[in-house]
Amino acid sequence: MTYCVAVKLKAGLVFLSDSRTNAGLDQISTFRKMIVYEKPGDRFMCLLSAGNLSISQSVREILQIEQLPPDEEGGEPITIWNARSMFDAARVLGAAVRHVFERDGEALKNAGVDFNVSMIFGGQIGSEGMRLFQVYSAGNFIEATPETPFFQIGESKYGKPVLDRVITPDTPLDEAAKCVLVSMDSTLKSNLSVGLPLDLVVYEADRLQSDKITCIDENNPYFLMVRRVWGEKLREVFDGIEHPTWDGSHTEVPLRCEGARALPLRKISSPKEKLI
Amino acid sequence: MTYCVAVKLKAGLVFLSDSRTNAGLDQISTFRKMIVYEKPGDRFMCLLSAGNLSISQSVREILQIEQLPPDEEGGEPITIWNARSMFDAARVLGAAVRHVFERDGEALKNAGVDFNVSMIFGGQIGSEGMRLFQVYSAGNFIEATPETPFFQIGESKYGKPVLDRVITPDTPLDEAAKCVLVSMDSTLKSNLSVGLPLDLVVYEADRLQSDKITCIDENNPYFLMVRRVWGEKLREVFDGIEHPTWDGSHTEVPLRCEGARALPLRKISSPKEKLI
Repeated sequence: MTYCVAVKLKAGLVFLSDSRTNAGLDQISTFRKMIVYEKPGDRFMCLLSAGNLSISQSVREILQIEQLPPDEEGGEPITIWNARSMFDAARVLGAAVRHVFERDGEALKNAGVDFNVSMIFGGQIGSEGMRLFQVYSAGNFIEATPETPFFQIGESKYGKPVLDRVITPDTPLDEAAKCVLVSMDSTLKSNLSVGLPLDLVVYEADRLQSDKITCIDENNPYFLMVRRVWGEKLREVFDGIEHPTWDGSHTEVPLRCEGARALPLRKISSPKEKLI
Repeated sequence: MTYCVAVKLKAGLVFLSDSRTNAGLDQISTFRKMIVYEKPGDRFMCLLSAGNLSISQSVREILQIEQLPPDEEGGEPITIWNARSMFDAARVLGAAVRHVFERDGEALKNAGVDFNVSMIFGGQIGSEGMRLFQVYSAGNFIEATPETPFFQIGESKYGKPVLDRVITPDTPLDEAAKCVLVSMDSTLKSNLSVGLPLDLVVYEADRLQSDKITCIDENNPYFLMVRRVWGEKLREVFDGIEHPTWDGSHTEVPLRCEGARALPLRKISSPKEKLI
């Protein structure tokens, strides 16, 4: 399994990936799922991948040489290194996915294996604004918007509530970095097939490069602190919420609060009685 | 979709279910997913169901008349109303599931529909200890243990982290009730196909009946308070954790913390360069 998340903010982009891969439960290994493509001052792009490892690795290999026909007569073929927009770069990535499908799709199908790969690809090229895409197995893709400023791939559910609560386009970069680490913590806690080390990239808008690229392992004091404090404080908050109290005078008791309307619960109190 | 959760504690049992059912995204309706079977002083049982609604409704109907052959010569057939143990009652439920499979399985298969139903069934009979089971589509079942004191069916992931953090066999009943409501809140927040009203049952060990059976709708002040306070405090805790700080002196920067070991991230800094 895998958990990758990327966030697009006014202030920049944040990317986080785990590195655990499993083929079945008895074959677990570590593969990095993030690649940064950087030409300082010209373009900064980051690719996160989930799904079948053989597919995602092939896509990443092919992406280096993938070309789309030039826009105008006699122009250069379009690659991720000369694309004039992130949209074109995402098209190149989609084409790489389709090349792998042409190469391996039928054989995988014959082996009963789905062509399963999903990727998050974001960054900035030249003077264009930052963009963030989620790319599917068919090579098609969608783009993040202010209403939906983050994408997750792989084991996304455990870590989604905190993103839903915190992330907006106005969230500061470091706060978003903290948020994706908390999101990862919830995922690590509930799914053994997601594991350390983590790769974290924070990209500041319009820098066209990043020095905030780091790998977080089990000894990283900041992540250890986040996990410990989050767990402890969460427990404190939980303990701080008052317990429900009950009014024992009826068979069906709403938690003590006038507003509550108790719908009829289907309760069968003797063998012969029919469902109410 | 559905979210149901049940917890087995030394102090008793807690059951919670939502009531949203959807056939596709465009057909959403409300069906209660909990039934209580109670013969005060003799037995208290609660059944939660998820999966294909036509199957789970049929199982609940058949369960009323389902019989297993008597243990001894000339004895009475075993029903959920005379079973001497929750294990036997769970066997009766399993038999009901298999009856529905015999009746509908082939037709569903011909229609390309999986025979998909999962249930949580728990309670107490006579002097036997409380027991909690998860019943699968094949009518087989597993039982909760001190190491795994809760079961979830349906959309289980969003709400699992808080259960993992809080629930142990020693958790008091009201605290467990609060915990499953928080778990439900996370699920409601992240999955539109899980919805109010909720059915909540709290059973105290050895009472062989319960008056803590309630329906929680959108006006329930206790649940409203839990949702509001949990959301607010969670945010406070998050804001209380310090942001990561960065040391800009290298290309690969660990979050500022001596212990961190930065593994090589695969970074491609020029078109021709190979993957490191």
